[in-house]
Amino acid sequence: MPPAPQGDPEEEPHAIAQVVRERMYSEDRAAQALGITVETIGPGSAVCRMDVRDDMLNGHATCHGGLIFTLADTAFAYACNAANRATVALTCQISFIAPAHAGDVLSASAREQSRTGRTGVYDVEVRRADGAIVALFRGQAYEIRGTVVQPAL
Amino acid sequence: MPPAPQGDPEEEPHAIAQVVRERMYSEDRAAQALGITVETIGPGSAVCRMDVRDDMLNGHATCHGGLIFTLADTAFAYACNAANRATVALTCQISFIAPAHAGDVLSASAREQSRTGRTGVYDVEVRRADGAIVALFRGQAYEIRGTVVQPAL
Amino acid sequence: MPPAPQGDPEEEPHAIAQVVRERMYSEDRAAQALGITVETIGPGSAVCRMDVRDDMLNGHATCHGGLIFTLADTAFAYACNAANRATVALTCQISFIAPAHAGDVLSASAREQSRTGRTGVYDVEVRRADGAIVALFRGQAYEIRGTVVQPAL
Amino acid sequence: MPPAPQGDPEEEPHAIAQVVRERMYSEDRAAQALGITVETIGPGSAVCRMDVRDDMLNGHATCHGGLIFTLADTAFAYACNAANRATVALTCQISFIAPAHAGDVLSASAREQSRTGRTGVYDVEVRRADGAIVALFRGQAYEIRGTVVQPAL
Repeated sequence: MPPAPQGDPEEEPHAIAQVVRERMYSEDRAAQALGITVETIGPGSAVCRMDVRDDMLNGHATCHGGLIFTLADTAFAYACNAANRATVALTCQISFIAPAHAGDVLSASAREQSRTGRTGVYDVEVRRADGAIVALFRGQAYEIRGTVVQPAL
Repeated sequence: MPPAPQGDPEEEPHAIAQVVRERMYSEDRAAQALGITVETIGPGSAVCRMDVRDDMLNGHATCHGGLIFTLADTAFAYACNAANRATVALTCQISFIAPAHAGDVLSASAREQSRTGRTGVYDVEVRRADGAIVALFRGQAYEIRGTVVQPAL
Repeated sequence: MPPAPQGDPEEEPHAIAQVVRERMYSEDRAAQALGITVETIGPGSAVCRMDVRDDMLNGHATCHGGLIFTLADTAFAYACNAANRATVALTCQISFIAPAHAGDVLSASAREQSRTGRTGVYDVEVRRADGAIVALFRGQAYEIRGTVVQPAL
Repeated sequence: MPPAPQGDPEEEPHAIAQVVRERMYSEDRAAQALGITVETIGPGSAVCRMDVRDDMLNGHATCHGGLIFTLADTAFAYACNAANRATVALTCQISFIAPAHAGDVLSASAREQSRTGRTGVYDVEVRRADGAIVALFRGQAYEIRGTVVQPAL
């Protein structure tokens, strides 16, 4: 008789993160409308992508800082919810380094710097396809009660 | 013979701010696409408005933090360029206080806290129509060379 | 027989704040060592003072930014604990506007901008005696369990 | 006849950083008074150390957040001036992660994340001797005119 299926302890956090991503993204109309995609997700990390469209430009003909922030904030949100504990942003800081132009493909890589008790700190780097850093983002996360996907995985 | 018309010194900064607003907004495709409007502008201040649309919601059915930031950042941009000295954001910080939902009308009021040399600090409050503070934003501005509108007013 | 003494509802928060201040300050060796004093305290607010000493100067002969931050952070701590709910700083941001020199008397005024659930946002202005803004500080507070003074007032 | 001595291009930035450190530290009375030392310095980087003394404690018997900030800010200052271009802090952000107690030896490692034009971004990690992260700090630097050491190296 075969053994009951059991989760691989090393694989499980990654599997949970995938389920969280699918659920969150299916309801994330803002990310969808901006064409932001979640390229990868894992425990405490996520990579998102956004192609700079003409309707994302400001008067300097560069990508509006708010939309660069939105990309970074989205990567932050997926990274800090990846363990299926519902978590929100308390405060975020962003430094703008270099501009992005129409047609640029931006990549935002988020990683957990700390998570203790109900709070955590996450750093996100936003880069152009040529590798230049466009912005550095740091988010302070706060865990509310509940899970992203129910019943708890 | 009557003298040539001259600007009222008290009125002039307001008139300059209006011209800056028109020029900036005509090219601000991101603000236009998000339905952000510039309600008022003056020396070192601006008020912007955004109606929360369905395509601005995240998975919690609340307005995506990135778009709240975008509204605040837009008010900041108009306030810090109102004197027709081209100015960009170096770094911004936002604290999220209360959620906004579909249909909410958000108002972002920016005001200059300091401007010395080529740098300045601006605070922005984002409020719902019921007066609740949705977010507090602080931006650090940096003056680059040039003007928003040429020839210099 | 006279009734038992009862607190004046309007006075009580101020009375609690005074008791919190005395207890906190008696154990606040860092503030004492730097000569920081708590001038006033009330619900969600506090004003602290620091005289810039020679041993607070950096290589530019101006007050070390870390000590300006320490003054602001101290005002923040008293303001956010004034209701006798033990509260700590999660993250703080400071913008440096103008220098302070030896002999300058600095005043840091903290006030609560929001307090919802277990988190809050506090702004602090640091000014010289001539009124010039030296720094603007914003702190994100997080309420831990317990009180500052036991038994609970 | 021996050739005239010439600087090793790879060594020179390190040599400049050492001279900057000596000059800055000799005048940095605040760092001296707090027992902060500059352990290492190089192009865009610095490591500082501080032993937590009894007179650095707050009412929770942990190191005052302002002094943790001061340590981080000092590492930031040495890192961003290491190339002998006089540079000051515009704005800084700190997240407090874990407490430090009397007797703890704290180490702050600063490194340059970007430096373009007259501005730069530096990250500092403050750790206890057991490796735990005490705080994460991010500083925005602004280059003023002049050098730290004259004549220019």
